[in-house]
Amino acid sequence: MNKTMGEISHTPKTPYYAVIFTSIKSENQENYAEMSAKMEEMVQIQPGYLGHESASGSIGITVSYWESIEAIKAWKNQSEHNIAQGLGKSTWYSQYKIRICKVEHDYGT
Amino acid sequence: MNKTMGEISHTPKTPYYAVIFTSIKSENQENYAEMSAKMEEMVQIQPGYLGHESASGSIGITVSYWESIEAIKAWKNQSEHNIAQGLGKSTWYSQYKIRICKVEHDYGT
Repeated sequence: MNKTMGEISHTPKTPYYAVIFTSIKSENQENYAEMSAKMEEMVQIQPGYLGHESASGSIGITVSYWESIEAIKAWKNQSEHNIAQGLGKSTWYSQYKIRICKVEHDYGT
Repeated sequence: MNKTMGEISHTPKTPYYAVIFTSIKSENQENYAEMSAKMEEMVQIQPGYLGHESASGSIGITVSYWESIEAIKAWKNQSEHNIAQGLGKSTWYSQYKIRICKVEHDYGT
C-alpha cells in the first residue's frame, strides 16, 4: 500500500518530522526507475514512516514524514537504501540537498 | 532577482525555517498565473526570506526557507499575500496543507 501516491500525506498532530529531499538529475538515469520503485515499496514498511509527497519539474522535490529523528536515522542506515543513496550521489543526481526538519505547526484543508 | 528559480536554494547554516506548502489544484485557475507571478516577485523582498523551491505533478510542492518564525508570520500577514491566500483557499486549490518546520540539520552537494 502506498499511503501517499498523488495525494497530500495524512500526518498526525504536530510535532513530527520531515525530510525535504531536493535534487537535480544527471544525464545518467540507468536503473533509476527500478530502484526508485523498490525504495517506494520499502519505505512503506519502515518503522515510524508517516507518508511522503513527490513532484518534479526542473528540480525534483520529495518530502517524507516521520514520527521521530530515530526513525529517519534508521531509514538512512537501512542497507538497501544505503546502496540507493550511494548510486544517487555517484550517478543519478548532479546536485541534491537533504534537510531534516521538525514540523512544529501545520494547517490546511 | 529570483534567488531560486529552477535550482536548489542556497540556505545558511542550520537552524533556519521551512514552510512546506503542498496543494492539489481545482478546475478553476482563473487569474492564478498572474497572482503566482506577483507573489514570486514580492516574496523576494520579504525580510528574512532565504529562497524557495517548487515542483508540480499530480500535486504541487513549494518549499520556502526563512530566517525565523517571525519572518514566516510577517509574510503570512502581508496584505497582498493575504488576498492571494484567500483566493487560493476559495478558488484555486481543492486541497492544501501548510507545514511550518524548523530545519535542524542539512547536507548535500
